[in-house]
Amino acid sequence: MFPKNAWYNAGWDYMFTQSQKNGLTQSKGSLVARKIAGERVVVYRKPTGQIVAMEDRCPHRQAALSLGQKEGDGIRCLYHGMRFGADGKCNEIPGQETIPERACVRVFPVVEKDNWVWVWMGDPAKADEKLIPHAVGPGDPDWNVKTSHMSVNASFRLEIANLADLTHLVWIHKESLGAGDKVSRERFTSIKPKFTMFPNAMRTQYVVRGAPPSVFLQHLFPEGALFDWDFDIMHTLPCTWVLHFKIFVSDGKLEGEPTGQLVAETWTCQAVTPRDDDSVDYYYSWGASKSTDFPGLSQLLCDNLDDAFSEDRQALEAQHVRMKERPNHPMVDIIHDAGPGKMLWLLDKVLKDEAKQAAMAVA
Amino acid sequence: MFPKNAWYNAGWDYMFTQSQKNGLTQSKGSLVARKIAGERVVVYRKPTGQIVAMEDRCPHRQAALSLGQKEGDGIRCLYHGMRFGADGKCNEIPGQETIPERACVRVFPVVEKDNWVWVWMGDPAKADEKLIPHAVGPGDPDWNVKTSHMSVNASFRLEIANLADLTHLVWIHKESLGAGDKVSRERFTSIKPKFTMFPNAMRTQYVVRGAPPSVFLQHLFPEGALFDWDFDIMHTLPCTWVLHFKIFVSDGKLEGEPTGQLVAETWTCQAVTPRDDDSVDYYYSWGASKSTDFPGLSQLLCDNLDDAFSEDRQALEAQHVRMKERPNHPMVDIIHDAGPGKMLWLLDKVLKDEAKQAAMAVA
Amino acid sequence: MFPKNAWYNAGWDYMFTQSQKNGLTQSKGSLVARKIAGERVVVYRKPTGQIVAMEDRCPHRQAALSLGQKEGDGIRCLYHGMRFGADGKCNEIPGQETIPERACVRVFPVVEKDNWVWVWMGDPAKADEKLIPHAVGPGDPDWNVKTSHMSVNASFRLEIANLADLTHLVWIHKESLGAGDKVSRERFTSIKPKFTMFPNAMRTQYVVRGAPPSVFLQHLFPEGALFDWDFDIMHTLPCTWVLHFKIFVSDGKLEGEPTGQLVAETWTCQAVTPRDDDSVDYYYSWGASKSTDFPGLSQLLCDNLDDAFSEDRQALEAQHVRMKERPNHPMVDIIHDAGPGKMLWLLDKVLKDEAKQAAMAVA
Repeated sequence: MFPKNAWYNAGWDYMFTQSQKNGLTQSKGSLVARKIAGERVVVYRKPTGQIVAMEDRCPHRQAALSLGQKEGDGIRCLYHGMRFGADGKCNEIPGQETIPERACVRVFPVVEKDNWVWVWMGDPAKADEKLIPHAVGPGDPDWNVKTSHMSVNASFRLEIANLADLTHLVWIHKESLGAGDKVSRERFTSIKPKFTMFPNAMRTQYVVRGAPPSVFLQHLFPEGALFDWDFDIMHTLPCTWVLHFKIFVSDGKLEGEPTGQLVAETWTCQAVTPRDDDSVDYYYSWGASKSTDFPGLSQLLCDNLDDAFSEDRQALEAQHVRMKERPNHPMVDIIHDAGPGKMLWLLDKVLKDEAKQAAMAVA
Repeated sequence: MFPKNAWYNAGWDYMFTQSQKNGLTQSKGSLVARKIAGERVVVYRKPTGQIVAMEDRCPHRQAALSLGQKEGDGIRCLYHGMRFGADGKCNEIPGQETIPERACVRVFPVVEKDNWVWVWMGDPAKADEKLIPHAVGPGDPDWNVKTSHMSVNASFRLEIANLADLTHLVWIHKESLGAGDKVSRERFTSIKPKFTMFPNAMRTQYVVRGAPPSVFLQHLFPEGALFDWDFDIMHTLPCTWVLHFKIFVSDGKLEGEPTGQLVAETWTCQAVTPRDDDSVDYYYSWGASKSTDFPGLSQLLCDNLDDAFSEDRQALEAQHVRMKERPNHPMVDIIHDAGPGKMLWLLDKVLKDEAKQAAMAVA
Repeated sequence: MFPKNAWYNAGWDYMFTQSQKNGLTQSKGSLVARKIAGERVVVYRKPTGQIVAMEDRCPHRQAALSLGQKEGDGIRCLYHGMRFGADGKCNEIPGQETIPERACVRVFPVVEKDNWVWVWMGDPAKADEKLIPHAVGPGDPDWNVKTSHMSVNASFRLEIANLADLTHLVWIHKESLGAGDKVSRERFTSIKPKFTMFPNAMRTQYVVRGAPPSVFLQHLFPEGALFDWDFDIMHTLPCTWVLHFKIFVSDGKLEGEPTGQLVAETWTCQAVTPRDDDSVDYYYSWGASKSTDFPGLSQLLCDNLDDAFSEDRQALEAQHVRMKERPNHPMVDIIHDAGPGKMLWLLDKVLKDEAKQAAMAVA
């Protein structure tokens, strides 16, 4: 079950190439097949560069339109040459004069923003661009944002829970993003996050005071150096996770706002798109402000996400297998479930509301 | 669901080797495991060369007889040494004097014809060799027929529909068997095939007038050369597809019988055998008459089928996945569904008739 | 369905390493994930070397404990750092003062014996070490036992049946463990085993008189040499199979106890552990007494098991596929089903008894 009236991330803008060869073949990335919240979607650019997202399923006999050919603003199906406009309507059936009205595919509202491509999977009338979460993309002139992506064979819900509580930095990521020493563990697990709820999002703010640097950054600093890690996260349904992250030299205090020197100010923007109940696509970035960046830092940040998310992937895939084996296994709750609990509660509320609306629409 | 009373193709004759080593091992192809219409079948040759097809399932505990050993006219099971004659009856249980009557495996009528091996999956009493479709095999002295084969993870029904309408030559095969230029597309999609129906087959005849050569043959002809493509197809259930195909130099006319020079006269014989609901084995050939062949042509024809059927495979496998996801998705019919519609109607009629007969036999 | 109150084999002792690195990573084999009779189990050694087996499923959200870290006598979960003692009780939830009583994982009785690790999957109160079958391990000073292991994608029941009748040595293993010549086949298939039944085991004794050596040993003996093969097998549920095997030079007689020279006295100890309904782990050994061993013999014996069990694997996996396709296919029984029949009857009796006890416990 996935929310319908929501913007889902289809990937980075550079994944969808505008070019269209003159000949018969077309370049990689011209027609991109995605599975988003259980729906087959083909995403491509018009010659103007404008993005289009439509159902990846020819209305004739369900051939994959993503195997076809871009033609003008539309797509021609590879199987029998039916041509569809960017509005999803068939405008040519080779060898046939009339075109049945039903010969059309669903078109999804799609928006490019912050170098991300967003697809609206619900009622187009409700597709409000203002609902797209704020992000800082690789094209932003003030930040050196680097990007990457990954697929994970685990439920969307496990990803939401994973992102809604970062105490796992000192456990899963004890050799990458976080650290496994005693001080780090004490500092990270004793945080008292401030949660602010929105109808489809949760903001989480806290500072980890006086902690060592991440293991992947320790070679940059003198031994024993301590920092204040300042987290400000906006986590939006279905699953966009945007963190404004700052590191300060520790001022020796364990309370209050950091007052030490700002070492780095960064944004990491992450989107998890469910393919189906058992897998997700994950698009993410990290980068420092140009004023705090130095050569190699931003790429180091983003490369480390590849390592760290591979650690998550192994953990979540093993967890997913076990949850499928025992869907009704009893659960023990712990203090750090506050964030995950709030986000999954929000998700379930949205799903229930949508189910109620659908039932009312029928009645 | 597959017709029972039908000849299914088990492959080319050379796939079943007669040789039997003196020692313990036996040569590749001695005992060939097939899955035909959901049934496990082991196919082999007696020392005389005669082909045998029997259930690939020992009646003791379902061991695979195809892992056993040829012995005389029969097979010895690898597991406990039970020996079965070519009639499927167990004639030895090592260590045991009496042989239960039930110790036998089903034997399928099998015929070699035109270098193909045909297996009858229904009532042996109805296994009439005259029902085997006409074909021109690689052993025919008047034709240079070359052979190949492929497996596809798609439904048998999708393959039938694919073969029953060749307009996809200018779409799926626009870079191989067909061509993607405007003239080719107009000529191919405006054909008016003549269909002739038989109880278990459909004949389709038409000429594509004044079209460029197939892309894979274009290097053989001067630019701008046009041809008349003469198709005469016999498509038989479950799925044999035999095309007598001729190419003539275009006489400039768009109607009537071709009157230009005969460039090549060819036969392509193709058989699609369902393994189960989700996969098929595909055995095919193509070759020119000795009178129109020239060095390399027939091999070029058949090699191109490998390329073209790989294109089909990609398309049909994507279509199959989508059809499994949405079995009740609405369909839009188009003019070129005439052939596929007739063949699938015929298939469904045969299935219904067999179901009715089975019900009557029970009552 | 698997017996619960039974010792299952988790592998050889050397598969579980005691070492624990000082740093963050730990050595291979520190925490070993197993699936035993459908349950996820993590097996490891305490610093003392003592073996622990517990549920491989954190009670918080089903993370895999086997991905965590050994810490003292217990395990720390990789996800949120919950720490469990060797008794399965959570003794630390980082960031939280109280620990819910339900925060514990199931611990399984576990015993090391004869270099094997045994896990009890049922009621701990019934875990009697005396029920562990007798075996001769690689650590036994009087025998040169060599070890190996394998996984097979087939049902546990097929493995039991396979081990309960060795006449397949002259069929499946005709080029390895057994031989395929006429004399071997006559001798092996005409055996009259003596079966002795126990509540959860079957002893099988017989001598194959005057047979050629196994094919894999034939290079060691003059052509035409004949031997008496003396089998004494204890086959215990769920599936331990221990054979005291002796070879004597044939005394020319076909009845009575062997009186020829003892060529080799060996033990082969084998344990088949069901992972789930479709796969097993197989741990096995073979070796000669030090008094009859000569350089290379014991390793040759055990290496040959790798070859022979690969032959079994191919046969059983094909059989398993066919049995899943046709679970109700009629079966024909033969004389050599006596052993398999008795063992499967014993298995089904134990399963029925356990089901009855479970029903009574509920009532």
